[in-house]
Amino acid sequence: MKNQLILDGKKVANHIKELLSSRINKLGEKGITPCLATILVGDDPASETYVRMKGNACKKLGLESLKVHLPSNITTEDLIALIHKLNRDEKVHGILLQHPVPSHIDERLAFDAIALEKDVDGVTTNGFGQTAFQLGTFPSCTPAAILEMIDYYNLNLEGKNTVVVGRSPILGKPVAMMLLNRNATVTICHSKTKQLEDIVSKADIVVAAVGKPHFIKGDWIKEGAVIIDAGYNKGNVGDVDFIQCKVRASAITPVPAGVGPVTIAMLLKHTVIAAETQTRNLIGITI
Amino acid sequence: MKNQLILDGKKVANHIKELLSSRINKLGEKGITPCLATILVGDDPASETYVRMKGNACKKLGLESLKVHLPSNITTEDLIALIHKLNRDEKVHGILLQHPVPSHIDERLAFDAIALEKDVDGVTTNGFGQTAFQLGTFPSCTPAAILEMIDYYNLNLEGKNTVVVGRSPILGKPVAMMLLNRNATVTICHSKTKQLEDIVSKADIVVAAVGKPHFIKGDWIKEGAVIIDAGYNKGNVGDVDFIQCKVRASAITPVPAGVGPVTIAMLLKHTVIAAETQTRNLIGITI
Repeated sequence: MKNQLILDGKKVANHIKELLSSRINKLGEKGITPCLATILVGDDPASETYVRMKGNACKKLGLESLKVHLPSNITTEDLIALIHKLNRDEKVHGILLQHPVPSHIDERLAFDAIALEKDVDGVTTNGFGQTAFQLGTFPSCTPAAILEMIDYYNLNLEGKNTVVVGRSPILGKPVAMMLLNRNATVTICHSKTKQLEDIVSKADIVVAAVGKPHFIKGDWIKEGAVIIDAGYNKGNVGDVDFIQCKVRASAITPVPAGVGPVTIAMLLKHTVIAAETQTRNLIGITI
Repeated sequence: MKNQLILDGKKVANHIKELLSSRINKLGEKGITPCLATILVGDDPASETYVRMKGNACKKLGLESLKVHLPSNITTEDLIALIHKLNRDEKVHGILLQHPVPSHIDERLAFDAIALEKDVDGVTTNGFGQTAFQLGTFPSCTPAAILEMIDYYNLNLEGKNTVVVGRSPILGKPVAMMLLNRNATVTICHSKTKQLEDIVSKADIVVAAVGKPHFIKGDWIKEGAVIIDAGYNKGNVGDVDFIQCKVRASAITPVPAGVGPVTIAMLLKHTVIAAETQTRNLIGITI
């Protein structure tokens, strides 16, 4: 049996949080508590759970969490007015609009109403552009988590054939750009891709971001490939058939306890950075 | 001998310009002449030539061209102040900052100072994000030209294995996003890519955006592939070894008279659209 590396999301998340603690303390000494505002529209139970988890993660680390719960019939205009208010609120350092919002709302317009410096969830169009051009604001949290895991485990990206399955604005597209910026050769596949199996079978690194349970099969995987499962589907099931894929992979993320916990840790990290940046004149920290 | 299609950039450019004529006339009836401001910093002879060509193309089609020539020792601050002035100038509908600017200038900051609605050359970070997310502003002109040529000749993109060689902010990255949005499977290669030849040899469509003369060789090309050469190197030489590649390709763009003339036509088209959009209250055109 060869040595298989299970990429442990909880371990990586704890590492990130440990490093944040002293930064949060430093801010605390100046009377500043990093604050994440979460906006939940409507009563989708899954969304409620996600928002609660994020709020709890904030509290546990000593961040403030401002929960805004809006009725499902709110208009795009009113939602945006609220976001603008949070943009102006000096006590709020990060803003997260829980996705998905009810279909009558223009989600893109609402996302793009978030001020770039408070876009800690990395959902704005301009933020995506900045990520793609390496201009240093907050990438989307899941792509950021993927890169963080890769770095934690010292996995090499340079020149690697990397296949991203999925092309969403907050996952497939930004992670493709981030991998590209780290000198991977990146192929982006999606529902219209032909011979997906064949393309995946040539990948040194596979990033699954499809949103279909157990979509990536074990016999698609090249011996020794690295598998990152960014999917989360009903019942806490990933996009990757973990049991099958594990046999061939040199390293693989499980679901749960893979990319998920790191994603939340990155949200916290971005919120702390946002607080440091927005209060830098007060606290004299050099960013 | 099989039938080979030489993708004729002059023909496509003329087609675009013909369609623009009536729109320019309509604007003219309301006293509006679309105006492109071109900013040239310093005395690089190649840049001077490009700016002159673009100015001439404007005039020939009945667009106004406002040429701003700045000394090479201008500061980033002063350049940006000038861009802001042009942003406010209602007579200017599009702004083009000729690339490259002298190295002491923060080119990215200068590009991003251009107002999104006047960014007809498609160089802003936010504009790139909008292109990637299909939000309908102006993509960079060369990627736009590539898609225009593909559409003119009715070449099918859906599910095609498309290899983009190059990852620059105004060429490789945006054309990759545009091809992806048109349902191509997109691989982005670059200087750190391993086995480039092997990857290119599997492509149905190759977009060369490297900036190295005759970099793509004939024996890399799959029989029947479509080759788009977006390179322009000294001596009017493309990135593709045209003579060699033509033998295997089903369709290929030459250099010169390939992507180049269409790029300029797209700049004109974007300027006309910008003029229509910015004056829509005056002219009552529905965009």
